[in-house]
Amino acid sequence: MLSAREILRPVIRQTPLLESSALSALLGGPVFLKCENLQRGGSFKVRGAYLRIARLTKAERARGVIAASAGNHAQGVALAAAALGARATVVMPAAAPLPKVAATRSYGAEVILHGAAVEDALAKACDLAEETGSIFIHPFEHPDVIAGQGTVGLEIAEQCPQARTLVLPVGGGGLAAGVAVAASSVLPQARLVGVQAEAIAPVPGSVAAGYPVAVTPSATMADGIAVAKPGALTTALLARHGARVLTVTEENLSRALLLCLERAKQLVEPAGAAGVAALLEHPANRFEPPVVVVLSGGNIDPLLLSKVLRHGLSAAGRYLAFRCKLPDRPGALATLLAELAALGANVLDVMHERVTADLRVDEAEVNLHLETRGPEHCDSVISHLRKSGYTLRFS
Amino acid sequence: MLSAREILRPVIRQTPLLESSALSALLGGPVFLKCENLQRGGSFKVRGAYLRIARLTKAERARGVIAASAGNHAQGVALAAAALGARATVVMPAAAPLPKVAATRSYGAEVILHGAAVEDALAKACDLAEETGSIFIHPFEHPDVIAGQGTVGLEIAEQCPQARTLVLPVGGGGLAAGVAVAASSVLPQARLVGVQAEAIAPVPGSVAAGYPVAVTPSATMADGIAVAKPGALTTALLARHGARVLTVTEENLSRALLLCLERAKQLVEPAGAAGVAALLEHPANRFEPPVVVVLSGGNIDPLLLSKVLRHGLSAAGRYLAFRCKLPDRPGALATLLAELAALGANVLDVMHERVTADLRVDEAEVNLHLETRGPEHCDSVISHLRKSGYTLRFS
Repeated sequence: MLSAREILRPVIRQTPLLESSALSALLGGPVFLKCENLQRGGSFKVRGAYLRIARLTKAERARGVIAASAGNHAQGVALAAAALGARATVVMPAAAPLPKVAATRSYGAEVILHGAAVEDALAKACDLAEETGSIFIHPFEHPDVIAGQGTVGLEIAEQCPQARTLVLPVGGGGLAAGVAVAASSVLPQARLVGVQAEAIAPVPGSVAAGYPVAVTPSATMADGIAVAKPGALTTALLARHGARVLTVTEENLSRALLLCLERAKQLVEPAGAAGVAALLEHPANRFEPPVVVVLSGGNIDPLLLSKVLRHGLSAAGRYLAFRCKLPDRPGALATLLAELAALGANVLDVMHERVTADLRVDEAEVNLHLETRGPEHCDSVISHLRKSGYTLRFS
Repeated sequence: MLSAREILRPVIRQTPLLESSALSALLGGPVFLKCENLQRGGSFKVRGAYLRIARLTKAERARGVIAASAGNHAQGVALAAAALGARATVVMPAAAPLPKVAATRSYGAEVILHGAAVEDALAKACDLAEETGSIFIHPFEHPDVIAGQGTVGLEIAEQCPQARTLVLPVGGGGLAAGVAVAASSVLPQARLVGVQAEAIAPVPGSVAAGYPVAVTPSATMADGIAVAKPGALTTALLARHGARVLTVTEENLSRALLLCLERAKQLVEPAGAAGVAALLEHPANRFEPPVVVVLSGGNIDPLLLSKVLRHGLSAAGRYLAFRCKLPDRPGALATLLAELAALGANVLDVMHERVTADLRVDEAEVNLHLETRGPEHCDSVISHLRKSGYTLRFS
């Protein structure tokens, strides 16, 4: 594992470890963020990809490498291949976000857009590898990839040797397995906690079974860890090292992203915030401090970010949207707005609708977006309006 | 100045210096970001406030401190006073953003909401200081405040002794004057470049005159540096040290904020991004590398951030909004959308309007929001649609 570190040293960044006062206050002990969102390519993925490609023979490397990914693995492989002078082809789903396609191309990879889902891109990449003889770089299921990701654990051991708990997102399991192996030798006192989105959480069952068990995926904003079936190797390593795996809701993922941004000033993608989401969702006594939370990646489309921000504010009770029926006569809206002002709610948006199917001709409806101070304030605004006789709809 | 550093050491964070590959590529030489957005309280302001309050006599400190601010100075004073056991009162404009009020209170300060503008809050704070005997803490015009902010320069000298250019936002001038003084002894080879928003830029004229000259302010998103008249002391120091001061447009402020977020994964407020905006706006040869850009603060309301993100994407040609007239018959919208798909523009939002004052009865209008790949792509989408006979409106 140490030789992995030596191989990576000239290429990757040793990312900073930042103390989070907001999370330290929440847990009652020091919490640090390991900022792999600041890694080259915007996530830890370059570590595994680089070690894997560096350990190919010269003859293999000359055949070029190929990968399939809608996100961070694409950029990791493109960067690593460029640094090692290997030709890279990355198959991405046709609807992959434009900035991710542009970033992958900017590192010099050939991008092929194919299919609707990552599975289609994967099948295409495997076919191409067979046809062309290029080496297929799997995103997690390979010892060199796992060892590369594990160097995150070696850095944590140097930056925070007193750590008792390591919390990190789990998708296919490459990062978690690598860090589990590394920590077992350099941070033997630390407990590893993996985190998955509740919507796609095959790892708890797989680790219990000792082999990969697939789940039927639901929708999640954490696309970076949306893997329906983890690897056999990663599952075996996680089971051997006694990793615990918790799940988090979509609400806590968006609240966590918002907390990272607003309090720690770090941009993370939804999957990258999963560790922080676990601290928000689960009792503090499950995380013995000092705690190190890995922010695994920061590649999020700014347009998606806008949406997640509103979702996170809403989940934190700081944003309230509803429809309210009004008598369609002069002054009715002014009265409502005066009432909201008295309640201390800041009006962000008002859309006034006069004609919709379920309104009587003497009624109008306003769609209101308010800035609020937290869950109690939201409740108080809603109950005051109802007491004043307004009918509210949430949808 | 070194003693300022010693006094601050136990309280402030030595913030990280991160290399920005995006800006290094732009300038053709290394560019580093000094991340004062990661400072306690979210900006450099705690440095000056703490040194100022620490250097009060015990008797003065017992009378409490008072400040007026809509933003970072409020949090800096609140934090510094709490750390020194002094009572703090902060007067904020009545419409100050809820998160800033909440943060200032959370540090233990008494917050008084007063008046519409910062000037009203300032007058109120001065009255209160007179009535109560509390010590007024000016945001920039005091030697201890300036010396405190100057410790940013001392840290840069240690983290990047080879720096040739320091670029930093200028409002009242406290940070710039402090860093200019510090750099003159520890980074004598470095040139200081101050940056102001074009909308409120009194410093170039003031430095040239040698005394503060006020300007009539226009609207700017960079509220943190929106100061219509700099200090006499800060102006004299900037003039003595030969600081250059450049201005930046609102477009480049929002593009810079977006670049910090998307590429460096750092949340900065619009004023905090002014240094980066200067690198985007002015010719590269005005910044001899290695360049250190100070990100001065990261306190931005998430709701404002949403808006600035769209503004930044729009300024970078990655977001295009317009209205387009269509014949009001079945299939007309489908035809338009098919054309957009063929042009590679991703439709984010479609609002279909049938009845507005300037439409004929056989016309409809759609309001379209598109994701685009850059300025050329925008131009090509617009010219193709016009060639196909569509009438576009931008507003």
